[in-house]
Amino acid sequence: MLGSTHGTLTTTSRPARVAACGERRGPAVHGLADDAEDLDVSGRPLRSGVPDLDRFFRPETVAVVGASDAEGRPNTGITRQLVAWAERVGARLHPVHPTRTTVFGRPCHPSVAELPERIDLAVLLVGDPLPVIEQLAASGGDSTDGKAAFAVAFASGFAETGPEGAAAQARLAAAARRAGVRLLGPNTNLNAFEHFRTDLDGPAIALVTQSGHQGRPVFSLQELGVRLSHWAPTGNEADLECADFISYFATRPEVGAIAAYVEGLKDGRSFLLAADRAARHKVPVVAVKVGRTETGARTAATHTGKLTGADDVVDAAMRQFGVIRVDGLDELQDTSALLARARPPRATGVAVYSISGGTGAHFADLATAAGLDLPALPAAKQHELHQWIPDYLSVANPVDSGGHPVGDWRGRKIIDAVLDEPSVGVLICPIPGPFPPMSDTLVGDLVAAAEETDKLVCVVWGSPVGTEDAYRDALLGSSRVATFRTFANCVTAVRAYLDHHRFVAHYRSPFEEAPRTLSPSARKAQALMRPGEQLSEHAAKQLLRAYGIRVPREQLVTSAAAAVRAAGLVGYPVVMKASGPQLAHKTELGLVKIGLTSASQVRDAYRELTDIARYEGLPLDGILVCQLVGYGVEMAVGISPDPLFGPTVTVGLGGVLVEVMRDIAVGVPPFDEDRARAMLGELRGGALLDGVRGAPPADVDALVETVLRVQRMALELDGELAELDINPLVVLDRGQGAVALDALALCR
Amino acid sequence: MLGSTHGTLTTTSRPARVAACGERRGPAVHGLADDAEDLDVSGRPLRSGVPDLDRFFRPETVAVVGASDAEGRPNTGITRQLVAWAERVGARLHPVHPTRTTVFGRPCHPSVAELPERIDLAVLLVGDPLPVIEQLAASGGDSTDGKAAFAVAFASGFAETGPEGAAAQARLAAAARRAGVRLLGPNTNLNAFEHFRTDLDGPAIALVTQSGHQGRPVFSLQELGVRLSHWAPTGNEADLECADFISYFATRPEVGAIAAYVEGLKDGRSFLLAADRAARHKVPVVAVKVGRTETGARTAATHTGKLTGADDVVDAAMRQFGVIRVDGLDELQDTSALLARARPPRATGVAVYSISGGTGAHFADLATAAGLDLPALPAAKQHELHQWIPDYLSVANPVDSGGHPVGDWRGRKIIDAVLDEPSVGVLICPIPGPFPPMSDTLVGDLVAAAEETDKLVCVVWGSPVGTEDAYRDALLGSSRVATFRTFANCVTAVRAYLDHHRFVAHYRSPFEEAPRTLSPSARKAQALMRPGEQLSEHAAKQLLRAYGIRVPREQLVTSAAAAVRAAGLVGYPVVMKASGPQLAHKTELGLVKIGLTSASQVRDAYRELTDIARYEGLPLDGILVCQLVGYGVEMAVGISPDPLFGPTVTVGLGGVLVEVMRDIAVGVPPFDEDRARAMLGELRGGALLDGVRGAPPADVDALVETVLRVQRMALELDGELAELDINPLVVLDRGQGAVALDALALCR
Repeated sequence: MLGSTHGTLTTTSRPARVAACGERRGPAVHGLADDAEDLDVSGRPLRSGVPDLDRFFRPETVAVVGASDAEGRPNTGITRQLVAWAERVGARLHPVHPTRTTVFGRPCHPSVAELPERIDLAVLLVGDPLPVIEQLAASGGDSTDGKAAFAVAFASGFAETGPEGAAAQARLAAAARRAGVRLLGPNTNLNAFEHFRTDLDGPAIALVTQSGHQGRPVFSLQELGVRLSHWAPTGNEADLECADFISYFATRPEVGAIAAYVEGLKDGRSFLLAADRAARHKVPVVAVKVGRTETGARTAATHTGKLTGADDVVDAAMRQFGVIRVDGLDELQDTSALLARARPPRATGVAVYSISGGTGAHFADLATAAGLDLPALPAAKQHELHQWIPDYLSVANPVDSGGHPVGDWRGRKIIDAVLDEPSVGVLICPIPGPFPPMSDTLVGDLVAAAEETDKLVCVVWGSPVGTEDAYRDALLGSSRVATFRTFANCVTAVRAYLDHHRFVAHYRSPFEEAPRTLSPSARKAQALMRPGEQLSEHAAKQLLRAYGIRVPREQLVTSAAAAVRAAGLVGYPVVMKASGPQLAHKTELGLVKIGLTSASQVRDAYRELTDIARYEGLPLDGILVCQLVGYGVEMAVGISPDPLFGPTVTVGLGGVLVEVMRDIAVGVPPFDEDRARAMLGELRGGALLDGVRGAPPADVDALVETVLRVQRMALELDGELAELDINPLVVLDRGQGAVALDALALCR
Repeated sequence: MLGSTHGTLTTTSRPARVAACGERRGPAVHGLADDAEDLDVSGRPLRSGVPDLDRFFRPETVAVVGASDAEGRPNTGITRQLVAWAERVGARLHPVHPTRTTVFGRPCHPSVAELPERIDLAVLLVGDPLPVIEQLAASGGDSTDGKAAFAVAFASGFAETGPEGAAAQARLAAAARRAGVRLLGPNTNLNAFEHFRTDLDGPAIALVTQSGHQGRPVFSLQELGVRLSHWAPTGNEADLECADFISYFATRPEVGAIAAYVEGLKDGRSFLLAADRAARHKVPVVAVKVGRTETGARTAATHTGKLTGADDVVDAAMRQFGVIRVDGLDELQDTSALLARARPPRATGVAVYSISGGTGAHFADLATAAGLDLPALPAAKQHELHQWIPDYLSVANPVDSGGHPVGDWRGRKIIDAVLDEPSVGVLICPIPGPFPPMSDTLVGDLVAAAEETDKLVCVVWGSPVGTEDAYRDALLGSSRVATFRTFANCVTAVRAYLDHHRFVAHYRSPFEEAPRTLSPSARKAQALMRPGEQLSEHAAKQLLRAYGIRVPREQLVTSAAAAVRAAGLVGYPVVMKASGPQLAHKTELGLVKIGLTSASQVRDAYRELTDIARYEGLPLDGILVCQLVGYGVEMAVGISPDPLFGPTVTVGLGGVLVEVMRDIAVGVPPFDEDRARAMLGELRGGALLDGVRGAPPADVDALVETVLRVQRMALELDGELAELDINPLVVLDRGQGAVALDALALCR
């Protein structure tokens, strides 16, 4: 049910190297870059084209196909709204209708073929937009420019209704491509052509949504004084998708933040490239992402893929590219409004100021739990504040005024003194309930102080009533005070604000460094592949070795005598394991023998292992005689396919805990060393790597290096390798490296 | 800083068996029951007295000490408010002032000693309330009833200012006890005497807060049509505390839910008893609990105490007694309003209905993530709905009407059809933004339908504007529709509503079964105690054995020859460990030898262990020769002291993971077997007990039994045993039991 109504297609995003890319990339206006240099080694684009959406949002010429001014027709109201919108943006509007001669006094054209000029935007109010698009293709001739630059299709009944609708939608998209027209919809609406307030200034929110209804609250922020610049309702995304609008908004000067409501991403890579573009331009993207992506059927016997829900992958992708994910539309409003309007922070410290010690304590509790830093104010600053605040009240931060000082001239002094503190970048004043003699004066002082400072001033107006003058007039009337209704949303937004500025200050695009050509490792690895099969442990380890990932000294043997010889070469004590293409969970089956110290133990073990395999009916390619590797932290590193983002790299604690605790971090390629290191920090059990109970710290650098090599493997072998699970990867003491003790690899 | 301003005392709640209880329990009106039968074996009360707060909230006689009607005096405004309040509740008000003859036309008395009648409530507007309380004691004579039943002290400058203030507060409390007067405050305010709307009906919220400012938003709910019956601002809680008001509210017929804002609990046990009383009377308690309780200095070398933050203990205590903990004041408002007014659910299924598929998907995503059950509607019901809703829209649940049907007669049909479905107990209609032609009609239909059903109807009015008529008039005007402003708060409240009714339906008070007398185990255990010391592993295991907790067969030996003899008796292979009073982390020090299979290995191990201990300077009481216990799930079970709640019982995964993952569940005594079992369900790694990767399920019954035996130990040895850490407790396969392989015990 989830996300079904807009039927955005989730393609399994493994591009066939040439054909798919050629198919996806038509004329430049169709999006992705067409320079073969701009593909990574997996065939995914490293750069995206940005459609010239100025012509969509600010067209000079508009055609309304299916226009009407007849009383009682549904299209009449829509046409009226479009006429008004065209007047506002200064566009020439051409009604198109087969039988009318005029519509609202404008000459009407029988078909798009007969339009008097090239059209920037054709709005299609017809039940079946396909014939119109085909007409545009025909009349556009072989001009690469087409007859119209953009079209919007309102009609529903496409992918959201099932397979037949999806097929119709594909035909529509193909026709648009042929016509050289970029298509918005189908199954979209009038939101892009709403009346935006023009009396508000400052940086604006640009909004992109896959549901008109769900975008409405953000749009309504204009009634609270927050400027909106654009609204793109992307509907079914047969052609133009959310990513195209994010990319476009990222370089519009009036846009301070991008708010997105997403039900399903059309393509993982195009989303990453759009987020990358926004990050490079330091424009925050705040997104609600609904639903759980279908992971599709799996045949693998490995574990990692099952454990990393695709939503974790979306989370990871957003985190990597600085997209701020929130869950509620209220958080989307509050966070994007703050990020659009607030200047970069002067400092990262947050000061909490309240007229009640209880309020300060409660707010500080929630703020610190969310990771905000509330630095203690210096003694001199506290001394200064105690000029106006009784000595027995704490002004260390939170600052508790006790109430009375806010009612007179001292109130403003307190606020200015706190704002003047260099470690403070954000002042937050939570006001749970109105008490006009105090709260009105307090609000007035906060509004006035905010006008004069370049630091962020936030107020939480906690009254559930919300009709008070101090709220409606004073707070909402100020574009310099960020006003919230709940402590939680204020904390979320301020955290996002500080995180965003920290993130963009250090951002380096991972697409710059993404591998474009196959390494020699890949040639070696490809020779080991067996299409459709699971490799034996021995073969999987050869694969790792090809990528420079350390595995134990080991030999594959097929007789007891050879096992004894191998043990001599590998060095006692040894580990012996059955190796075969179908094997998983060897330990549980008794197919692993550890710590064998003599030839006779090796011979016995050989017999026992082959007996068990015969009894269980498991084909073997032999018995592995392996070096016993020293003690370390057991981790698991793997490759897991995601239908949206392609291969992902996972890292977690090894052994049975991977399964039970689901303590796994995901990396979505391309990512760099910093990200690989950050993944370890996301593990709840990551502290094991630091050494606990006197254990020495583990070789984290070697683990990070392994994760990066696995990423390379994921990209280079995307066409051949479906899944990989190195488990355990024993991370030895610092400086000693990391060794893959076992691995499962599944070929496509 | 947190919670400091109200300075509620957190006593280390280990009562000295006789003296402390005698001190705490004065005349019956002073609270806790005074029947020695009503103490558990640790000396904590099993029942609490409930003060007769009717006389506080609805007094017949009120004295206002420090009353004034002189222009410009701060007390004049307060007196005026009290006069108005006394008139509303029909009380006779007696002003008291040393020099005035009348106040607001009423005869004024020079002191409380000269009041003409016994007083239900004395409101003390004086800077130092102590002399007044002492006068009340003197003039009350030796009547156990006292001169006044209740007093309220507004003055500040007590425990919130530091140790001197705390001492003054203790004197005040002692004087009140002598005077037989129950005291509210000091450092409180007028909130109890506010003007409550009397035109609202239905069950009300009763509010108790430790900060007036923080209670204001809940009080303001009256402006949105939600009835409030009481507000108790408890201030410093020198005498009356939050728990007293919860206990009282729990049996008031007009109270539908209790909302509490708590900064620090005065006493853990009185809070549990109050929550128990509310649970027995099926009255929901919704609480914001701020801050982190100081865990105080610890000397223990055990781990569990450090890992279970005291806030986890508060969480556990609330969960055990069904108190709904929320973080925000907005959640406190929304959840308590819903729980106060909604009738018990007819079914636990939630149906989501929206005019937009996107909205339904988003809401369903958040709802299911929070654990709400959205049952698929039966095929027949879907067929019925498709009479009015186009076939291509999903009506399985969420029900997506697509919009248009809500605008006419079909709208109400759809709502009624969904409400008519037996599996549906709650209908939620999220409306992110207003679109009056549809949303006004929809709201009207929902309000009308809610009047006629006994099921819960919830609406989320998501517009940030909040001045729309459909919201202000229609939704807030209905006491049958539960209205929210955010998806998240609706989900939180509905989850709490369903959880509450599920909880109270099965609630059994654990105080009924709490142990009152020492078991024979306790006598044995007490003989093993060494005050102030950490017991050796051997002694700690004897302690466990006294409580019927299984330990390995083992012998403590002091010579190599004795070790060999012991190994023969215990049975090879054996484990050998150093045992001594200072030892922790034996494995890291090399003081554990596992799997010794011969006399010579035992002799070598004996020598090696004693050598290491000598080298490290660790005194030993000997070497333990222990049975090697089979494979199982390693858990940790312990006793950890909490300054508020006394000894708590913890259970988590054993070994180093306890430290790293902090995957621990807490039980606050008294708790029963169901709770012990539920604790295992709270562990993220709890699935290990079910058997993973083909492992057989572990003996969970034996683990639960061990947890309960540890609880008994915690209560019976509260005076002697400070901390206990059984780690690992190996839980064998089902039917095989659980064995404590190691234990640390710290005596008081």
